[in-house]
Amino acid sequence: MRPSLEDRIEVHRAQLQSKPFPGFGHALKPYYGFDESYVALNNGSFGACPNHVLAVYKEFVDEAERYPDTFLRRMYRPLLTAARKQLAEIIHCHVDDLVLVANATSGVNAVLRGLNGTWRSGDAILVYETIYGACGKTAQYIVDSNPSFALQIVRVPLSYPLTHDEVIQKTRAAIEDAEAKSINIRIGVMDAISSIPGVVVPWERLCKLYRSHNILSLVDAAHAVGQIQVDMTAADPDFFISNCHKWLSAHRGVALLYVAKRNQHLTHAIPTSHDYLSPNLPPPKGPPLLPTDAPSNFVATWEWTGTIDMSNYLSIPAALEFRRWMGGEADIMAYNSNLARQAGQIVSQKLGAGSVVMEVEAASQAERLTASMVNVSIPVDVAATDADERRTELAMLGARLQTRLTTENETFVMFYVHADRIWIRLSAQVWLEPSDFEWVADKIQGLVLEHQLQTKATI
Amino acid sequence: MRPSLEDRIEVHRAQLQSKPFPGFGHALKPYYGFDESYVALNNGSFGACPNHVLAVYKEFVDEAERYPDTFLRRMYRPLLTAARKQLAEIIHCHVDDLVLVANATSGVNAVLRGLNGTWRSGDAILVYETIYGACGKTAQYIVDSNPSFALQIVRVPLSYPLTHDEVIQKTRAAIEDAEAKSINIRIGVMDAISSIPGVVVPWERLCKLYRSHNILSLVDAAHAVGQIQVDMTAADPDFFISNCHKWLSAHRGVALLYVAKRNQHLTHAIPTSHDYLSPNLPPPKGPPLLPTDAPSNFVATWEWTGTIDMSNYLSIPAALEFRRWMGGEADIMAYNSNLARQAGQIVSQKLGAGSVVMEVEAASQAERLTASMVNVSIPVDVAATDADERRTELAMLGARLQTRLTTENETFVMFYVHADRIWIRLSAQVWLEPSDFEWVADKIQGLVLEHQLQTKATI
Repeated sequence: MRPSLEDRIEVHRAQLQSKPFPGFGHALKPYYGFDESYVALNNGSFGACPNHVLAVYKEFVDEAERYPDTFLRRMYRPLLTAARKQLAEIIHCHVDDLVLVANATSGVNAVLRGLNGTWRSGDAILVYETIYGACGKTAQYIVDSNPSFALQIVRVPLSYPLTHDEVIQKTRAAIEDAEAKSINIRIGVMDAISSIPGVVVPWERLCKLYRSHNILSLVDAAHAVGQIQVDMTAADPDFFISNCHKWLSAHRGVALLYVAKRNQHLTHAIPTSHDYLSPNLPPPKGPPLLPTDAPSNFVATWEWTGTIDMSNYLSIPAALEFRRWMGGEADIMAYNSNLARQAGQIVSQKLGAGSVVMEVEAASQAERLTASMVNVSIPVDVAATDADERRTELAMLGARLQTRLTTENETFVMFYVHADRIWIRLSAQVWLEPSDFEWVADKIQGLVLEHQLQTKATI
Repeated sequence: MRPSLEDRIEVHRAQLQSKPFPGFGHALKPYYGFDESYVALNNGSFGACPNHVLAVYKEFVDEAERYPDTFLRRMYRPLLTAARKQLAEIIHCHVDDLVLVANATSGVNAVLRGLNGTWRSGDAILVYETIYGACGKTAQYIVDSNPSFALQIVRVPLSYPLTHDEVIQKTRAAIEDAEAKSINIRIGVMDAISSIPGVVVPWERLCKLYRSHNILSLVDAAHAVGQIQVDMTAADPDFFISNCHKWLSAHRGVALLYVAKRNQHLTHAIPTSHDYLSPNLPPPKGPPLLPTDAPSNFVATWEWTGTIDMSNYLSIPAALEFRRWMGGEADIMAYNSNLARQAGQIVSQKLGAGSVVMEVEAASQAERLTASMVNVSIPVDVAATDADERRTELAMLGARLQTRLTTENETFVMFYVHADRIWIRLSAQVWLEPSDFEWVADKIQGLVLEHQLQTKATI
């Protein structure tokens, strides 16, 4: 007879625990599935899943095949609840206020689309210039698909480096300007750590500011959990979404969606669930198609939203166990933020004059822009002088450099344009050491020198 | 060095092809991941994935870990296109008109929610009494979340068994009734094969009827592909969605979403994609964040909708290869529909007087209700006489019988109420033989006898 799921997972657990943690850096690489030649400098985009977590993930996949109905109707539910419970402890919220979705974009979509049916004429959505691409498109789609309400997007301009105080001031200015124009900002979408550039945002203070203006706070914390400490009870956001496959070592795609109890009636599962209760119909009679012992309709509607392989959701406890084996959240964050700061110094020094790290003079880690991602400017320029043309030309140049770096070397680094410059975003992560950033700095320096020579040659 | 993805997949392929197909029935069980004790009689709910497909699936999972950015930015795209191309051949459409989503419910949601922004006052959605639960809830959610348009649901009553002609007539009557009341039915949601009861619906003829009344046809074909032959070119539906993990042997969750070219501007990806183009904004400048060589914006927006593990999508070619190894679609469908009809006879005869198969007198397979799923009534009744009370009591009794059957035996069979009776739905599938249905008929007969004795005892 085949061993039980619990026994099979226990074997993986024992195997992991039988090995002493070898310390952060290259000694950890064998614990991941990377190709030997690959230098993974861009954890920020897709994360990476430890072998231990992947092994447990595959046990769930196999278990569902063993008796599909038994697993997908009965067994998955307590496993899902256990995953949610462990996440709730990490972000300091009640387990009933946290559900799982495929990724942060899906969570942001559920929240913004959930407001359909409640918009009023003249309502607006507050966003930042640095909003994640797909989320900015989502806000625009909400505007486009509600034409009768003439919704607006209010955009806060952000040109980094900026102190947290400056971000707060610019937000306040945008809100007060909208209020002066009688624009009713209904909800604001802020990052906890933005993607491009990869900088920490004072999201707790923004939540407070929003609240004082009666604006719902939607925190796109795609990069937060596992990279910085977050506390729902202290910050009290209205909605908070974090990927768990980026920085928390789970198998992609899984994200947590926290919704404050006061807003749970606003956030409907996508796709619409069997358990959706219409406010316009009497409650259904008879037993549900898929039985649930969910503590609320909010949780019930998110427990099942159409057939998927839920193994990624269920991989959360294995991810957290792997992280405890590495020393726990505080140790991981300390290693990564130190390494990110080192990486910034290494790369900007190698690239020489004209290259800067995107950072502010800050007394404490809490005031810094750099957590586990660091942004460094590339000392190249384009000929155009018109702002729009410069932006396009810089973007094309950045894309060319990125393509060359990525196709000529076994790595990936994101090049992007911000504040009239090309920057790169680098991710520190537990398997990396300073030498990895020295390696990539050399490669980028080579491309920059080549570009500078070509540019001179064509003058 | 580790072998390439192609080489690893080739090993699995060679391994499969080295074994001669042993014929349908129990000889195929070792090719699936079922527990030895499990009798999988409910393929209709979640499908089951052949070991060959699962092995290839896991190669994709591993490959993404090998170089996450390389795989998720570059490598997956041609693999995804190959999967779409093979599906397009099966359903006879152009590859550019077919994209992949997680499951049928997600596809139905994308189509119905995609109409937001285009509703007019007095519009209605046509549905059937037998609509799948989550899809019925989705239609209701569209009504609830568009309160300013006072949308309506027009419901076609269906009480099976019904001939295809009767389904057409009832639909026409509902449409004409709505037209007489100046209700503008914008779109109708029909099944190709409904879930409860599991019967074939004359969806091609309904598409034609809808078209003649200027109603968009949305075909929830969750159970269709792999169970019956479908042809987009011949039937010309407006929207057609079929799961590929139910009857097509792919790894859950993956479904195909076909959208006729004339409607592709209406169907927006959920979550909203990086590639979404707002009709109210000038087109974006500069290179896209995720480069694409997609042939249209429709395809581009669905190629990437937030980070997920796409291995289930990429498992389609392996699933089709496994099906060719079994003899191909026609052989599989012939075996399953024969077995389903046998199963109906076996179970209804065992349950004795009062048990019937849900079927019509039909000259040809095209007119029959039974494809690979068969519905059999259970000869039990409740005391209530009021229609509403009867419905609830029958549902409770059905749920009790289902729970007992499922917890006392290693199997699952769905019990449901339809047309004032309790029915079960059984799925024929390639690993099953008539003896499996004899086994479950015995178990159900035992429960029925026990119930009848108890009922008499309490009189």
